[in-house]
Amino acid sequence: MIPIISIVGKSDSGKTTLIEKLVPELTRRGYRVATVKHDVHGFEVDREGKDSWRHKQAGAHTVIISSPQKIALIRDVEKDSTLDEIRRRWVQDVDLLLSEGYKKDVQPKIEVFRKEKHKKLLCTKKNNLIAIVSDRKFNVGVPCFHLEDMKGLSNFIEKEFLKSKKEKEVTLRVDGKPIPMTPFVREFLTKTIKGMLSALRGCEKSKRIEIYIEGEEG
Amino acid sequence: MIPIISIVGKSDSGKTTLIEKLVPELTRRGYRVATVKHDVHGFEVDREGKDSWRHKQAGAHTVIISSPQKIALIRDVEKDSTLDEIRRRWVQDVDLLLSEGYKKDVQPKIEVFRKEKHKKLLCTKKNNLIAIVSDRKFNVGVPCFHLEDMKGLSNFIEKEFLKSKKEKEVTLRVDGKPIPMTPFVREFLTKTIKGMLSALRGCEKSKRIEIYIEGEEG
Repeated sequence: MIPIISIVGKSDSGKTTLIEKLVPELTRRGYRVATVKHDVHGFEVDREGKDSWRHKQAGAHTVIISSPQKIALIRDVEKDSTLDEIRRRWVQDVDLLLSEGYKKDVQPKIEVFRKEKHKKLLCTKKNNLIAIVSDRKFNVGVPCFHLEDMKGLSNFIEKEFLKSKKEKEVTLRVDGKPIPMTPFVREFLTKTIKGMLSALRGCEKSKRIEIYIEGEEG
Repeated sequence: MIPIISIVGKSDSGKTTLIEKLVPELTRRGYRVATVKHDVHGFEVDREGKDSWRHKQAGAHTVIISSPQKIALIRDVEKDSTLDEIRRRWVQDVDLLLSEGYKKDVQPKIEVFRKEKHKKLLCTKKNNLIAIVSDRKFNVGVPCFHLEDMKGLSNFIEKEFLKSKKEKEVTLRVDGKPIPMTPFVREFLTKTIKGMLSALRGCEKSKRIEIYIEGEEG
């Protein structure tokens, strides 16, 4: 599962600036990073008058722009998504998902704190605070990195999140709803499917299996 | 599977304008439409200086903006995607995917033709041309609708694409690669999985099953 870390902090604390410094350092180390920005007020990304903008204005639920270098997508949703929902639905082929904002989400958090801007920390270890990036020192039981110390912060992220062994993961969804499984059922399902697939050409050594079945029962 | 129709035509034939008129008519009839615009030259969608724009400039592979009303995503890709790839990866919860462009793709096509702009049609039935929208009449074996006749065109699309029964669909991907299956293997796999799941609470009447298995073999 792709690890998630949220960069949190009060307004104007320097969250975007931190991401701007951290992403190049992680990229330089060979990691691919996805970012997510939480925008509670709604936003405009596309440019007025462009074809894709005209599609959306006409009422398209989803608008995609596809080129050989990039894909962009804008779609309506009915409610705010958690970081876990965003990861499951939209993020793949990356090593880390960094979010800006999402201080209420359950994911691990790094707080940006600048002494001329703040009185006190926004998060504690209880909110899953894992590190602080600041121009002062804190003694709250989590590592504290200087605002410019991207090497130290990246070493920490690398050690804690990026070099851990890949967990085994099995997900089953029926009609979009995740179905909980006991360890026995999970193992039974996994081994049965892997057993069947091992007879198919191209499936001998599978690391990731995705199966999608659609259609009425019977 | 979500049906795909491509709106094709020469440059400046009125493809975007047709989509702008067609989407509201289909939406009014209760259908949700996704659109995709093919942009072979690359594009910019985000706005300079915005936080998400700064994330992408910093080298993020994927940038997502999430709000309670909309989600936007921009990500790098390594090659141009086919419409089928776009549908599989990015499109859900809609009734129809309308593309603008993609005249070389295999999907069904509606050609826009305006007599003051063109000499001859771009597509034939051999390229999967299914209808023409024009200010003149053609006798090439496919229905021809006037540029303003969105009712007629929508009736045609509705009849041919939106009221057909949902097909059964089974997809198996291993390490991201689709694995072809014979009808026997497909049925064997489907029935075995459905059989196992029928014993699990919440899975008795499944219309759509998704299974995701990750982790090294053995």
